[in-house]
Amino acid sequence: MYRTHSNGELRLQDQGKEVKLVGWVQRVRNLGGMTFIDLRDRYGITQLTINEQADAEVKDIVGQLGREFVIQATGAVVERSSKNSKISTGEIEVIISKIAILNAAEVPPFTIEDESDGGEELRAKYRYLDLRRGPLRRAMELRHRMAQEVRCYLDSVIFLEIETPFLIKSTPEGARDFVVPSRMNQGEFYALPQSPQTFKQLLMVAGYDRYFQIVRCFRDEDLRADRQPEFTQIDCEMAFVEREDVLQTFEGLITHLFKSVLNVEFKEAFPRMSYADAMKYYGSDKPDIRFDMRMVELNDVVKGKNFSVFDNAQYIGGICTEGCADYTRKQLDELTEWVKRPQIGATGLVYIRLTAEGIKSSVDKFYIAEELQKLAALFNAKQGDLILILAGAKRKTMEALGSLRIEMGNRLGLRQKNVYAPLWVYDFPLLEWDDETQRFYAMHHPFTSPKPEDMDKFYSKDKEALRQVNANAYDFVLNGVEIGGGSIRIHEAKVQQRMFEVLGLNAEETAYKFGFIIDAFKYGAPPHGGIAFGFDRFCALFGGQESIRDYIAFPKNNAGRDVMLDAPSKIDEAQMKELGIATIG
Amino acid sequence: MYRTHSNGELRLQDQGKEVKLVGWVQRVRNLGGMTFIDLRDRYGITQLTINEQADAEVKDIVGQLGREFVIQATGAVVERSSKNSKISTGEIEVIISKIAILNAAEVPPFTIEDESDGGEELRAKYRYLDLRRGPLRRAMELRHRMAQEVRCYLDSVIFLEIETPFLIKSTPEGARDFVVPSRMNQGEFYALPQSPQTFKQLLMVAGYDRYFQIVRCFRDEDLRADRQPEFTQIDCEMAFVEREDVLQTFEGLITHLFKSVLNVEFKEAFPRMSYADAMKYYGSDKPDIRFDMRMVELNDVVKGKNFSVFDNAQYIGGICTEGCADYTRKQLDELTEWVKRPQIGATGLVYIRLTAEGIKSSVDKFYIAEELQKLAALFNAKQGDLILILAGAKRKTMEALGSLRIEMGNRLGLRQKNVYAPLWVYDFPLLEWDDETQRFYAMHHPFTSPKPEDMDKFYSKDKEALRQVNANAYDFVLNGVEIGGGSIRIHEAKVQQRMFEVLGLNAEETAYKFGFIIDAFKYGAPPHGGIAFGFDRFCALFGGQESIRDYIAFPKNNAGRDVMLDAPSKIDEAQMKELGIATIG
Repeated sequence: MYRTHSNGELRLQDQGKEVKLVGWVQRVRNLGGMTFIDLRDRYGITQLTINEQADAEVKDIVGQLGREFVIQATGAVVERSSKNSKISTGEIEVIISKIAILNAAEVPPFTIEDESDGGEELRAKYRYLDLRRGPLRRAMELRHRMAQEVRCYLDSVIFLEIETPFLIKSTPEGARDFVVPSRMNQGEFYALPQSPQTFKQLLMVAGYDRYFQIVRCFRDEDLRADRQPEFTQIDCEMAFVEREDVLQTFEGLITHLFKSVLNVEFKEAFPRMSYADAMKYYGSDKPDIRFDMRMVELNDVVKGKNFSVFDNAQYIGGICTEGCADYTRKQLDELTEWVKRPQIGATGLVYIRLTAEGIKSSVDKFYIAEELQKLAALFNAKQGDLILILAGAKRKTMEALGSLRIEMGNRLGLRQKNVYAPLWVYDFPLLEWDDETQRFYAMHHPFTSPKPEDMDKFYSKDKEALRQVNANAYDFVLNGVEIGGGSIRIHEAKVQQRMFEVLGLNAEETAYKFGFIIDAFKYGAPPHGGIAFGFDRFCALFGGQESIRDYIAFPKNNAGRDVMLDAPSKIDEAQMKELGIATIG
Repeated sequence: MYRTHSNGELRLQDQGKEVKLVGWVQRVRNLGGMTFIDLRDRYGITQLTINEQADAEVKDIVGQLGREFVIQATGAVVERSSKNSKISTGEIEVIISKIAILNAAEVPPFTIEDESDGGEELRAKYRYLDLRRGPLRRAMELRHRMAQEVRCYLDSVIFLEIETPFLIKSTPEGARDFVVPSRMNQGEFYALPQSPQTFKQLLMVAGYDRYFQIVRCFRDEDLRADRQPEFTQIDCEMAFVEREDVLQTFEGLITHLFKSVLNVEFKEAFPRMSYADAMKYYGSDKPDIRFDMRMVELNDVVKGKNFSVFDNAQYIGGICTEGCADYTRKQLDELTEWVKRPQIGATGLVYIRLTAEGIKSSVDKFYIAEELQKLAALFNAKQGDLILILAGAKRKTMEALGSLRIEMGNRLGLRQKNVYAPLWVYDFPLLEWDDETQRFYAMHHPFTSPKPEDMDKFYSKDKEALRQVNANAYDFVLNGVEIGGGSIRIHEAKVQQRMFEVLGLNAEETAYKFGFIIDAFKYGAPPHGGIAFGFDRFCALFGGQESIRDYIAFPKNNAGRDVMLDAPSKIDEAQMKELGIATIG
C-alpha cells in the first residue's frame, strides 16, 4: 500500500492519526527551521511539515526535492495553527517522520499552476504536464461526470448502448472520409465513420427501438479554429416516434444533465423556434436568446425617401441597443469598421440615437424626426437607446445584423457564462443548391425526411419547389451554440431513392454506396428519428468555455497534428508495401 | 404518439383499456372466422385478435399482411381464454378495431426465429434482420447491461473515464497497425491504436490516478477464427499501486458484474496461481479450473524401465479421468488419433485402466503391476479410473496434455456453462526469444515491469538470465479463457530505456517511436499499473457462448470484410490523389 489517504481527504477529526501520503511536490517553502511541502494529487493538496525535530535523513531528502518530484511521506496529522480555508484539508497538516522519493523530476518546462507561464505550443508538446493543471483536471472531471450522467439517464429510459463499427465503407457525401488501406483486401479501403448514421438507422430496422452511444467520429476537413479531425458525439435514435417524442425525450436528458452536473434547474419547457423565425429575428440558425434585442425588418418604413442605400437594398433591418444613445462618434466609427470587416461584410452602419435632446441619426438628411420616431416605435425604443441599421442583400445582411447583435450582446455583458438559454430550432430547409457543382446538397444529411406536407414539392421537377421543401429536422441550441441536431428519417425505400435522385446520384452510384440501407428499408423499417449531440462542445459549454480543446485529453492542433506524439508521421516502405500502397507527389 | 404500450407490457389488470400498439408481424394465423397476429417488438410479443365483428377494412388490411410487416393496431385489452404462460403478455389479447400498415416487408431471406434457417453468410449480409432474432437481441441487451455496470462500478470507486485519441502514431511493436493517410500532412500516416496503452500511462503521469475507458482497439492481424480486426477493451490504469491493489480492485469489479448481471455470487477471494504452476498442473497459461484433473509429471517414476519412448522423452506426464476405465479399445484408439492431430501434436497415447479385474495398461510389457499401482497412487486414482499419459518434448507435451485435459473435461461434462471459475494467473516470463529474428520480444508489452527481485538479471548481458526474468504481470482467466491481462508498469525512464535496448531497438528508433513516453517519465512519473479486459469475449462468456460474433452488432468475417456494407471497397482515384497515395501491385 503506497498510501493510507489521498491529499484531499484529511480533516480535523483525523488528528493524531499516523498517515502515509503520496503525490507531487507542488511547492517547498523553507522558513528557517521549518519546511513546508504542498503535496498534490488529483484529490487535493495537503501540507506536509518538517520541523526541527525531524531526522537528519528526512531533512536531507527534503533538501533534494524539486517541483513535481513524486514522493511518499509518513507522519502524524495535527491541527494547523494558521488554517487555510481555501483548501479542503486546510485545517490540518502532517508532521513528517519518514519521507521517500518515488521518482525525481526534471524542472518542468512551464509552471504547473492554474495560470501557467507556458505557451500553447509548449503545453501541447508536454500535454501530460499541462493535464496536471487545475483547469484541465476539472475539465476532464466534468467530462467524466457528463458521460456517466448521459448514460445513466438514457439507460433509465431504456435506451440500449450498442457499439457500431469504425472500419466501414467510404461513402463520402458531404465531408471527406479518412480511409484505411486494407492489407487483406489489397487495393481496397475502409473508411472511418463521419457518424454512425446508417448503423443507427439499421438498428431501428433491426427492432432495437432506442439506441445510444457516446462515440468517436471522424471528418477529414480543413480545420477551422476549434474543430478536431476526431470528435465525440452522443448519438441517439428511436423508432416509432414523431418529432415531439424526440424533443421531449432529449429535453429530459438535457434537463437531467443540467440538474445533476451543474445543479441548474429548468422548470419550464425549452422554448422552440422555427428556422424561418430564427433567421428573421436573430439572423442566425442558432440564436443566443439569453438576451432579446430582436432584429426588425425596416423595408416598408424606410424605402422611397430618396436614400439610395436603402432604396437599392434587398433587406434593411436593425436592432435596438438599450442605453447606448451616448455612444461617442469614435465608438460609432469603430462599430462601423467592425461591421465592415470581411467576416461580417456590411457596407456601412446607420444609427439612430434617442437622446434627451431628441432623436438623432446618421441619415437625418433623408428622414424627418417624425419618420424616425415611427421607426423607433417598431423597436419599442425609449430615450437613451441606440438603433443600429444594416442594409444590403437579404441573407447576407440578416446574418451580418445577427453578428452585430451578438457583438452588442457581448459589449453590453448580456451573454453571461452562468446563464443558460436552451432552445429548439426546427423546420430547416431540406436542400441547399450549390451553384458551383450545379446540384442540391442535403442541408442535414441525405437520410433526413421531408416534412409530410412538402412531399408533393419533394417529387417536383422544379428547382424552386425543391428549394422550398422543409426538412423534419431540429437543432438543439444552447447560448447561441448548436449542440445537437437531428431529424425524423426517411424509412421508405422509394422516398430514400428519390432523395438520392434529387441529390444527383445515379441508380448505379446509389446502389453501390447505399444499396444496403435501401434494401434494409424493404424488409420492414419502422418510422424512426434521432439526434446527435456534439459532446466535446457540450462539455465545454457546461464548463463555461468557448474552446473545446481543454475538454479533450489529447487534442490535435489546427494542422491536424498531435504535437506530443509527433503524429502523423512517415511509415516504413515495408509497411506500405504490405498494404499495397505508395505515396505520390 | 405511435403507441400507448410496448408489446411486452400489457397484463390482466390492463383489461378493458383501449391501446395502440406497433411492431413487426411475427406470425399470422387464420382460424376460420378469427385471425391472430403475434406482434413483436424489442420488449415482447402481444397477441392481436381480429374477430368476425371487425370492420371489412380491418379484415382487408389483415389479409395483406406478411411476415415482418410493420403495423400499428388499436383495440381493447381482454382476458385470453387459452393463456400462454411462455410470454409475459400471455394472459391477454387485444381485440383489434383499427389497423394500419406502417411499412410493408418483402419476404425475409431467412426466418426471424430463435433458430433460423439462414446460413451464416446470408445472415451476415442481412445483419439487420439477423439482429431481430431473440438470441442476438439478448446478446446486445446483455452487452449493454455489462457496459453500464462496468461504468457504474468504476465510477463508484472514483475512476475517471477519459477518452484517448484514435488517430495516433504508428509504432508497431508486435502486431501490425492499421494506418490512415493524412491529407493535410501528405506522405505521413496516422495509426489506429492497438490499445490506449501509452495514453493511459501518460494519464497516470498527468496525475489522474484512476482511469478507465471502454474503448475500441485495432489490430491488423491475420484473422484466426473468432478474432476481429476491431475489438473492444475495458481499459484501466491506476497510480501508486502494487499488484495486490490492482487485483483487489478488479476482483471487486468482476464480482459486481457477476452479481448485478448474472446474479451469481462469489463469497470467497478468487484463486490465484503462478504461471509456472498453471503450466505444471494444467499445461496452459489459462487453466479451466471448473474441474480438477491435474497433470502429474512422471519422469522420476517411469524412466529406466527400458521403455524407450519414456526414456527418451524430456517430459512424461498424465491425467487421471474419473470413471473412464471402461473406455473401449475403439474409444481409446479414437482418443489416440485425437492427440495425434497436428493441432495437438502428440506422438501417441499411453493409458492405464484401473478395473475391477486389476490394473491394465498399454505398457504392461515394461511395467509390473506394482509399478503401475505406485504410479496410479500419484494421481489418487481409484478403481474405475483411467490414466492417460503423453511423453515428448517438455513444453509441447505439457501443452498437449493440457489440451487433452480440456477435451476429457468436455467429454465428461465437467465444463458447464453456468458454472464460473475465475482465476488470477501471475508472474509470467517478461521476454520471449524469437529464433527467426534473433531477438527478444516482450511477452506482454514493452511497458511491463520486471519483478523487482529480477532486476539484476534484467540488466544482465546473458540471454539465459534475461529469459528467466519474470514480469510483474497478471491475467484474469475465466473458465479457461483469458479475459483480462495487465501488469505493473515501468515508470522510470532508465528502466524503460533498458527495456527497449533488450528488445533490440537502437537509441534513435527508441527516441523516434517512444521518445514522448520516456520524456514523460522524467517529469515525475508515479508508480502505476493496470489491466485491460477483452469486452467482446467477457460478454460472450457471460452469455454462455464461445464465439464473440453474436456479441458484436456489426462484426466482420474471417477475411476482415463487412459483407453487409461490402467493405472494404475501392475508392475514387481523385480521393487517393488528394491523400497523396496510390495503390500498387
